[in-house]
Amino acid sequence: MFENIKRILIGKPLKTLDEGGQSLSKTKALALLSSDALSSVAYGTESITTALFIAGAAALWLQIPIALLVLVLLAAIVMSYRQIIHAYPSGGGAYAVASENWGPKAGLVAGGSLLVDYMLTVAVSASAAADAVTAAFPAILPFTVPLSIVVVILLTGMNLRGLRESANFLMFPVYFFICVLIVMILWGLFQAVTGQLPYQATTRIGTSFSGLSFVLFMRAFSSGSSSLTGVEAISNAVPNFKAPKEKHAAATLAAMALILAVFFGGITFLSYWYGIKPNVHSTVLSQIAAKTFGGYGVGFYIVQLATALILAVAANTGFSAFPMLALNLARDKYLPHLYMDRGDRLGYSNGILSLALGAAILIVIFHGSTDALIPLYAVGVFVPFTLSQSGMIIHWWRKKPQNWLFKAFINFVGAFISAVLVITLFATRIEHVWPYLLIMPTVLYVFLRIRHHYISIARQLKLSYANNDNAVRHHYDGATVIVLVSNITKVTTEAIDYAQSIGDYVVAMHVSFDVNPKKELKTATQFKNDFPDVRYVDIHSSYRSIVKPALSFVDAVVKQSQKRNHSVTVLVPQFVPKKPWQNILHNQNSLRLRAAFAAREDISVSTYYYHLSE
Amino acid sequence: MFENIKRILIGKPLKTLDEGGQSLSKTKALALLSSDALSSVAYGTESITTALFIAGAAALWLQIPIALLVLVLLAAIVMSYRQIIHAYPSGGGAYAVASENWGPKAGLVAGGSLLVDYMLTVAVSASAAADAVTAAFPAILPFTVPLSIVVVILLTGMNLRGLRESANFLMFPVYFFICVLIVMILWGLFQAVTGQLPYQATTRIGTSFSGLSFVLFMRAFSSGSSSLTGVEAISNAVPNFKAPKEKHAAATLAAMALILAVFFGGITFLSYWYGIKPNVHSTVLSQIAAKTFGGYGVGFYIVQLATALILAVAANTGFSAFPMLALNLARDKYLPHLYMDRGDRLGYSNGILSLALGAAILIVIFHGSTDALIPLYAVGVFVPFTLSQSGMIIHWWRKKPQNWLFKAFINFVGAFISAVLVITLFATRIEHVWPYLLIMPTVLYVFLRIRHHYISIARQLKLSYANNDNAVRHHYDGATVIVLVSNITKVTTEAIDYAQSIGDYVVAMHVSFDVNPKKELKTATQFKNDFPDVRYVDIHSSYRSIVKPALSFVDAVVKQSQKRNHSVTVLVPQFVPKKPWQNILHNQNSLRLRAAFAAREDISVSTYYYHLSE
Repeated sequence: MFENIKRILIGKPLKTLDEGGQSLSKTKALALLSSDALSSVAYGTESITTALFIAGAAALWLQIPIALLVLVLLAAIVMSYRQIIHAYPSGGGAYAVASENWGPKAGLVAGGSLLVDYMLTVAVSASAAADAVTAAFPAILPFTVPLSIVVVILLTGMNLRGLRESANFLMFPVYFFICVLIVMILWGLFQAVTGQLPYQATTRIGTSFSGLSFVLFMRAFSSGSSSLTGVEAISNAVPNFKAPKEKHAAATLAAMALILAVFFGGITFLSYWYGIKPNVHSTVLSQIAAKTFGGYGVGFYIVQLATALILAVAANTGFSAFPMLALNLARDKYLPHLYMDRGDRLGYSNGILSLALGAAILIVIFHGSTDALIPLYAVGVFVPFTLSQSGMIIHWWRKKPQNWLFKAFINFVGAFISAVLVITLFATRIEHVWPYLLIMPTVLYVFLRIRHHYISIARQLKLSYANNDNAVRHHYDGATVIVLVSNITKVTTEAIDYAQSIGDYVVAMHVSFDVNPKKELKTATQFKNDFPDVRYVDIHSSYRSIVKPALSFVDAVVKQSQKRNHSVTVLVPQFVPKKPWQNILHNQNSLRLRAAFAAREDISVSTYYYHLSE
Repeated sequence: MFENIKRILIGKPLKTLDEGGQSLSKTKALALLSSDALSSVAYGTESITTALFIAGAAALWLQIPIALLVLVLLAAIVMSYRQIIHAYPSGGGAYAVASENWGPKAGLVAGGSLLVDYMLTVAVSASAAADAVTAAFPAILPFTVPLSIVVVILLTGMNLRGLRESANFLMFPVYFFICVLIVMILWGLFQAVTGQLPYQATTRIGTSFSGLSFVLFMRAFSSGSSSLTGVEAISNAVPNFKAPKEKHAAATLAAMALILAVFFGGITFLSYWYGIKPNVHSTVLSQIAAKTFGGYGVGFYIVQLATALILAVAANTGFSAFPMLALNLARDKYLPHLYMDRGDRLGYSNGILSLALGAAILIVIFHGSTDALIPLYAVGVFVPFTLSQSGMIIHWWRKKPQNWLFKAFINFVGAFISAVLVITLFATRIEHVWPYLLIMPTVLYVFLRIRHHYISIARQLKLSYANNDNAVRHHYDGATVIVLVSNITKVTTEAIDYAQSIGDYVVAMHVSFDVNPKKELKTATQFKNDFPDVRYVDIHSSYRSIVKPALSFVDAVVKQSQKRNHSVTVLVPQFVPKKPWQNILHNQNSLRLRAAFAAREDISVSTYYYHLSE
């Protein structure tokens, strides 16, 4: 039944070689991987103007140079990531680059930051989607948190179905947003150029004003840069592309960067041109929409809808990138192997489920008020940016290909600006970013412990070889089998028949209590009559537990068997009722015993299943 | 660690033969088993006056005749149950009597009613205890439901520690209540006789008034009879008494009945004498306390405290009687055998835990407002009363001992009044008691299904005997062992060595995927080099699941082995990490495979445990 529900929800299993069919064209990849980056234009310009507005309306012209600086950073990051895609086509992005060039620990810092960041993305985006719904239906306001979790569950289900189906679903909101914003920006610029909407900027560029400090400028810049989160997702997901994977991934990244640059530049320009001031009642983007389309008409509402939709699906970037990053970490033994298992639909289901669980926990902890997480989130992005781009400089230095100095220069610009941003965030927002200093050492410790465990296991399991190049073997002279007997039924008979087929020496073990000595005697007599060829040992327990006396008897048998060079098997007869619910009607002590015997050395635990027909 | 927590909470395990030490003296038994019955005097008189007050203050004199009728019923029930204790000393009370004399189904109706009733008792009493606490500390009012559940958990823990320790704990609230009420009633009567508190009854006995209908009278009577719930508990718990069990149990029942009669009679008389009218602000008992002790002084508060305490521990009657009743039903195969298992402290832990769970669910469903459950609860008590007492008439008719006609007459009075009460409850309170008509058939159906299953299992498991009076056996000519191999490690070597010790024919089964054909080839080559004496079978899966292809191969082997008269063992090698948490780092496919193989006939599933030392 569980199987059927699973089929309906996530679809029929796919063959392993169908994998190619699940890989992505550029159009679909853009839908799947760009929603996070593109959605950030909904708040990027606003966060710059909000930061500047503290110094008064006169400071607002600074949004233009800051936007230019952000675009420079975007260009540097994108060019750098295109180089990363070609240099590290197996995915892993910042993690792979930092590991190879700076060493494994730097790689883990980059990887750990991004893993946590993807959880934050999903939590923030799902909360934003829930906010959009509750804004439309205020009656369900008390259910924002459950609603956010429903969004996470829907995205999880979609991603478990597979990449292509998620992409099909995401095509609409992403391309709808792209079209709507292109129309809005072009129409706005057209009106500005033709003078239909005259220049209304609060102050001309270059106007001097008091109250501008370096700190303020840097805060505004770091706020604006939060628009660049999500850019790294494509570099993590290269293996999901159609072949030639690197070429398609690089082209998709370029397309995304171009759209992002046009949107961010266009919106900031219109915000400056219209002289828009940030306020708590309406977003900068909605003010621009209202100005451009001449009030609160159809155009305005379409922009609102498109924005809500893209925010809702932004989480999906995390769902595409997290499992791939976890896969890379698991391959290097820093995460459990289970992140390397593909599900029936060939997605890395465990990664998808872990991300969903993490995001749901964050939503519950922060009760949907996830705005305070943004600076933390930015640190989690710019630390890996810094590590990966500085790592690329080392990469070029080592390889020295054609034009390597130019390539290294691009990475230097990206690394420098990213590093400045990280320092700025720690210097000006320590009240929001301090958890990073706790989370990162914890995550690193866990990564290293896991790897240590895997390496120790591998060492312990490695075969020893004798001189003749064959594995070292042990040849037993026989097998001793202990059969657990409670009362004498068909299950006992069959189990003993089976025990005699595998064992050279079979002994029946019965645990008796003080409750009913007559019954115990009867069982013993019947056994000796029915199985005259099998030794019957009655173990007496003064307590109610059967585990302790059973273990001490078995230990004694093991000692003797080692002298005879026998292997030891404990055979637990168990009947299987026709319907699973009927199991609660039977005292299956065998489960408890099995767990106890599993802890003993030199014992193999075997279950003889007797199947009931009715 | 779990074991240690358990030791602290419920104490060290007891030896089975210590059981005698856990049995009860009369004083302790009274504390343990009478709290439910005695606590009901806290609301018995009140429920009569409340029902009468609907017809006006003039009707209140009727509380005296109704109380007398309730006392007659009490006498009949108690005398009847004393007879039941002697006739059925193994406990089971109404269930045993009804089963033997009316037939099994009547017994199940009685037993089922009481099982559900004990859950209701615990829910109602735990809610009353929580109400008493929140009345003292109104700040925690929103936490009434969790608080009620805490009360249930505390009682559960106490009962898991064992009978005697619960009894020690309960001595104080029960005997405190008894002393306080005796002092109050005697002091009240003394003042009434000496004229210090003059006669203030609203109307003299016999005053006629309008508005009294037969229905009203019966409602008042049935309300008053709810004080008699809990009387049957002692008859269910006879086996818990010190020897001679029946004598002690009968004496305890008589003592309890006497106390109950004095309390109920005394309180009703004082209520009439003082002319107390029921109101929503203070209970009848607290009004009597205030009058008797001259206002709201120390005496008044001591009565309040004693009442709150006895209500809180009333639930314990259920905890003592439910497991014994469940034990009797389980012995007759109407409930799962697990109700026959004693815990480490020799209590029937599963009964205790089931009761606690049922009560907790009722508390959550009814949100602590459990008053509406009282009529339902009364039906659940008087149906078994009717069945057991009418059953006793049949018993005397069959046995015809000395004075049997007199004994049968006592039971007839009890049965008649109980039957009238049941009819009254269904006729006048159908809006509250209808769930009984749903619950009872469901419970009966479950009982009968369970018994049917046990009987069918026993028949299927019964040994077949050949002519020579020995069990029918099957002698195998050998054993085939299939070893699951994923990669080749020390675990594989040891598992194969073991397999060769138990098997005559050993085959290694490996499931391969399409992912990495080179690696699969390498594994095969290494295996053939290391284990030249073992056949290696590579099973190919196009999907990600290893279960299906493994099963179909094993089925083929089973077919062949049957021809050779071999038994078949599937051996799953598994390594056991040093610390349990490390299990999540490993893909233990073996669990999934074990479950799948357990569903196949003619296969024994064996696990070879390799213990890691680090």
